[in-house]
Amino acid sequence: MKTYLECIPCMMSQALRAGREAGLADEGLKTLLDEVGMLIRDIPMGSTPPESGKLVYEKVRGITGKKDPYSRMKAAHIREAITLYPEMKKIVGKAGDPLLTSIRLAIAGNVIDLGVNRQFDLIEEIQQSLGQELAISHYDSFVRYLEESTSILYLGDNAGESVFDRILIEALGKPVQFVVRDIPVINDVTREDAMMSGLGEVAEIVSSGTPAPGTVLSLCTEEFLEIFNHADMIISKGQGNYEALSETDRPVFFLLKVKCPVIARNLGVEENDIVLKFSNVDSTAQIQGGPAL
Amino acid sequence: MKTYLECIPCMMSQALRAGREAGLADEGLKTLLDEVGMLIRDIPMGSTPPESGKLVYEKVRGITGKKDPYSRMKAAHIREAITLYPEMKKIVGKAGDPLLTSIRLAIAGNVIDLGVNRQFDLIEEIQQSLGQELAISHYDSFVRYLEESTSILYLGDNAGESVFDRILIEALGKPVQFVVRDIPVINDVTREDAMMSGLGEVAEIVSSGTPAPGTVLSLCTEEFLEIFNHADMIISKGQGNYEALSETDRPVFFLLKVKCPVIARNLGVEENDIVLKFSNVDSTAQIQGGPAL
Repeated sequence: MKTYLECIPCMMSQALRAGREAGLADEGLKTLLDEVGMLIRDIPMGSTPPESGKLVYEKVRGITGKKDPYSRMKAAHIREAITLYPEMKKIVGKAGDPLLTSIRLAIAGNVIDLGVNRQFDLIEEIQQSLGQELAISHYDSFVRYLEESTSILYLGDNAGESVFDRILIEALGKPVQFVVRDIPVINDVTREDAMMSGLGEVAEIVSSGTPAPGTVLSLCTEEFLEIFNHADMIISKGQGNYEALSETDRPVFFLLKVKCPVIARNLGVEENDIVLKFSNVDSTAQIQGGPAL
Repeated sequence: MKTYLECIPCMMSQALRAGREAGLADEGLKTLLDEVGMLIRDIPMGSTPPESGKLVYEKVRGITGKKDPYSRMKAAHIREAITLYPEMKKIVGKAGDPLLTSIRLAIAGNVIDLGVNRQFDLIEEIQQSLGQELAISHYDSFVRYLEESTSILYLGDNAGESVFDRILIEALGKPVQFVVRDIPVINDVTREDAMMSGLGEVAEIVSSGTPAPGTVLSLCTEEFLEIFNHADMIISKGQGNYEALSETDRPVFFLLKVKCPVIARNLGVEENDIVLKFSNVDSTAQIQGGPAL
């Protein structure tokens, strides 16, 4: 997905929030906005939002001197999500379709996104996501791919959401490689965050090598691309990964909560909708009945 | 009121909306955002938002080549407000306190603000404003100043809102000078818009000489400053005029609907609140009983 014009003012807002979280005073924040302002002309509209976001958050790191402005908030979100984990396991245990319920929970966790300007309440979000219609649902394809896959590549999004991902990973019943960002960017999940979330117990943690807030393939390591290009089935969490991979020809299932008008427009849904979208839904392979693995 | 850091991303959004309204295609819009981005470092945080806004809208005019991107929308808003005028007169006619009701209607009209990103429904707004508590009400001071004033200086804000201003001007029962922007900026009322709104029949139309979206005194003509500095009572409509004049020592009554979080914070009220605030409410002159005119 390309960067939309509306993404540009949003990036300025993101820089401001991240700079504040890093403790910059007003003067420093103004310098940050000056620098991000000058950066705009270097952002080609053909690039994806996470590619542009990478440049913005590099500025934030450069000017604040903080490698991980959101570290405290990330840790707090992980702790909060961990307290909810036992209850979520109970919900899945009682569910008529534990896999679908786990998907709904994993999407609920996607609300923990500090790249967008929203407040959230995790318990409310869980309740809502369990009862809410999926605005796009390629669940049948998901089930079929899952059955025929030997292993799953799971692209993580935010810290804290990662605990919700554990619920889904446990429901998949297949070996999973859980993909983290290479360095901290916004509140995206890193190896350390994934370990804190207990994901080390249920998946192999793999870095994509990217410092962007989304799996931008051109910024990933060769090693990761090798895994990505040969995965049987890929689960992609959140907006940043969708923005980076929306045009992929790999079998990717995008699980996200829609938190911005630009992505809503791109997906043809409404803000606050929840989505389970398959990248290849219109492919011949599927129309002819079943995944070509 | 100084420019807050939050105003900067908002200015980028405003430039984008104005550029679109002027018919710029995506490539032109990107150039506009590039230019506005580079402008940010030239905006001192000590300047008021309308001073910064002036620079942004100059860029919009320069790049779009359109002197008045919002001209069509302004004309449509004036036409719509004129159709509501007879009904508003009836409401005032039946009111227990026709002056206060006229103030409420004048504030309702302040919703026609294309500098902020909101939809609005004029009829709904009128109904709401008539029933809504004023979050700040210096109405007693307003009445006292009005009684003792020979003439009133009335700083207009938006085109269309100007028809609502006519209602209040008719209720004031004193000679009024209605102040317009010198050239089109956002959808702010110009001499032509004021005439279209029927204000020529009830007031003398005066230009402040400013091309900023607010009465920035340093950008006004000597002639206007002479009037401003000697006015018995000044009525100021809207956010832009408040931003420009919030620290004045002249007797200004600010009438506005609060449409952005920054102004809400500055005034100590909530977004969507309606306000009638007197600039000198804490002055000794008033505490000692009555306006020093």
